[in-house]
Amino acid sequence: MQFFTFEDTMRVNGKKYHSLWLKPGQPELVEIIDQRFLPFRFVTRELHTLGDACSAIREMQVRGAPLIGVTAAFGIYLALTAFRKGEIVPYLHACADELIATRPTAVNLNYAVHKVLQELEGCTIPEEARRKALAAAQGLLEAELKSCRRIGEYGLTVIESISRMKKQKTVNILTHCNAGWLACIDYGTATAPIYAAHEKGIDLHVWVDETRPRNQGARLTAWELGQEGIPHTVIVDNAGGHLMQHGMVDLVIVGSDRTTRTGDVANKIGTYLKALAAFDNHIPFYVALPTSSIDRELTDGISQIPIEERTDEEVRYIEGWNGNDLARLSIVPEESNVMNYGFDVTPARLVTGLITESGICAADEKSIRKIFGKKL
Amino acid sequence: MQFFTFEDTMRVNGKKYHSLWLKPGQPELVEIIDQRFLPFRFVTRELHTLGDACSAIREMQVRGAPLIGVTAAFGIYLALTAFRKGEIVPYLHACADELIATRPTAVNLNYAVHKVLQELEGCTIPEEARRKALAAAQGLLEAELKSCRRIGEYGLTVIESISRMKKQKTVNILTHCNAGWLACIDYGTATAPIYAAHEKGIDLHVWVDETRPRNQGARLTAWELGQEGIPHTVIVDNAGGHLMQHGMVDLVIVGSDRTTRTGDVANKIGTYLKALAAFDNHIPFYVALPTSSIDRELTDGISQIPIEERTDEEVRYIEGWNGNDLARLSIVPEESNVMNYGFDVTPARLVTGLITESGICAADEKSIRKIFGKKL
Repeated sequence: MQFFTFEDTMRVNGKKYHSLWLKPGQPELVEIIDQRFLPFRFVTRELHTLGDACSAIREMQVRGAPLIGVTAAFGIYLALTAFRKGEIVPYLHACADELIATRPTAVNLNYAVHKVLQELEGCTIPEEARRKALAAAQGLLEAELKSCRRIGEYGLTVIESISRMKKQKTVNILTHCNAGWLACIDYGTATAPIYAAHEKGIDLHVWVDETRPRNQGARLTAWELGQEGIPHTVIVDNAGGHLMQHGMVDLVIVGSDRTTRTGDVANKIGTYLKALAAFDNHIPFYVALPTSSIDRELTDGISQIPIEERTDEEVRYIEGWNGNDLARLSIVPEESNVMNYGFDVTPARLVTGLITESGICAADEKSIRKIFGKKL
Repeated sequence: MQFFTFEDTMRVNGKKYHSLWLKPGQPELVEIIDQRFLPFRFVTRELHTLGDACSAIREMQVRGAPLIGVTAAFGIYLALTAFRKGEIVPYLHACADELIATRPTAVNLNYAVHKVLQELEGCTIPEEARRKALAAAQGLLEAELKSCRRIGEYGLTVIESISRMKKQKTVNILTHCNAGWLACIDYGTATAPIYAAHEKGIDLHVWVDETRPRNQGARLTAWELGQEGIPHTVIVDNAGGHLMQHGMVDLVIVGSDRTTRTGDVANKIGTYLKALAAFDNHIPFYVALPTSSIDRELTDGISQIPIEERTDEEVRYIEGWNGNDLARLSIVPEESNVMNYGFDVTPARLVTGLITESGICAADEKSIRKIFGKKL
């Protein structure tokens, strides 16, 4: 396996960025990109305190499961920089509760916070706790980064083989929502193979579903790709089927929020519709995910994965740029009822393969078990 | 066949409306609903001249193939009310050209204008021409109205049978875009069976796809249904698949812009994705259409029906209500490329049946020919 350089990639205005970093020279400060203003303004923000970290997660300055987890881990570290004296254990538990309450349904958040707390067990000296919390948070960050990088390397082989089949003609890839570096720390999951292929000089073009209701595709994925100089086109979520019918899509890659051990994939609402269209048109449909998002308890995604119902405001109103500032408009009759499901489940039978940090496998129990075997 | 009353239906604030009418007591004036302000404001507008009719079509004060056709027909009538002397034939042809140029791809527009011109052939007296033009325009209006009414009556039987199967529990119907009375004169096509079933007291609920990029579902269909007191819920276009997987949809009804003689259906972009999901979940998928929209020249929708590419502005910007007025916001990075296909084609194999003014038939050549036979 070739370790790809990804040198200087994930740029903003030509400069290399992560979605979260320690401020150079001031390691007691964490910095993030305030993603609420993208793609209209590039705003970074310093997190000084636990409260800052909580707000960043609650107000969705940061979003995406991996980034939320890492931000929360650094939140514990920030909390400890303010800790001077007293009982450290109850303090840590109060901090953990505060962080976890910011986005109650984010499984990653809970996992990351408890991972850091685990590392701090038995530790009573504030200075030592702080050092250990930082190391744990950085460990999580590095793990996310490495995981995405490996997903990119494995996924690259899929794009390379399509490029060869097409005799180096443009490979057209469709993606839904943002499973990009903004949701992770670097590279992204669904986007990592795209960035790797682009770096390798493969001719490619990305169809970006706008991804209503929050438009993470149009606002975040399109911006990421644009910053990286990758040719891409934003389309409404309704358009993908038409493109696939007309040979304008060679490959679909999406991310996953949760995958059953049988290969059913929960991802942003609308993913299932694209999987159906890919299947109907014999187009490979891949899901890029860290194996940590495979839930080994689950065997049937449609009946077992609870689907978050989100506020109707996301559908009733739309946010955009009025030329000077973020603004929102009403787009639904006031009297009308609205429902807003956040995710849907794509059955394994529609998934060509899972691209993980441990390799690519078919979306079935036997193949997934092999991947786990390799890793554990 | 029972002729349904539809009495007092298609109301606005409790008062019966058509989407276009002659002003009572002033039959030289045509009135329309300026649909651009819906659902936020209910604005009607008088059309005095040919120029008014052209603007109404060009600026999309009126939209929907049947309504555009009828408006254009009345446009010829309005043009003749201003005609005093001179050569009538070149005058009429200039008027026709002006009308047809307002929406070059609208097949109905062309058809309606030529239909009126045909009725005026050989007619040289302005007063007589005006009377004949009015009669021709009203004839077209009545034909659209009757056609939708019959579609409603036939489609009602589909809803009734599902209601019986469900033992009178709520029938959940999903629709895409606006094939409602606002697009026609009265009742609509896809909505006509819904209005008929509601009038008959059948317990039903409609899932309304918002229908990006122009949001005709959220803005027009939801408003229509709300005015009629029909329970409905607006959803993003991404959500329908999830609903169908979970047994929350019993029936899909959509309209059609053009149907091949083999049953392939061109309709608003995104229709194909819903047809795939309905098929995957064994949910009946019906298309409601006047037989006039069946193109007997075509045998393969995907390769033969040209799909209009519309301005990227519809995707880059979104229009909504800021509390006082219509406004628009930017929702895509400026540097990103955008594409905007207006329609897609649903292959006949995914269509359960066509609901026409001449009856319901399977979406295949033999069954469609039978319907034509009955009619011709």
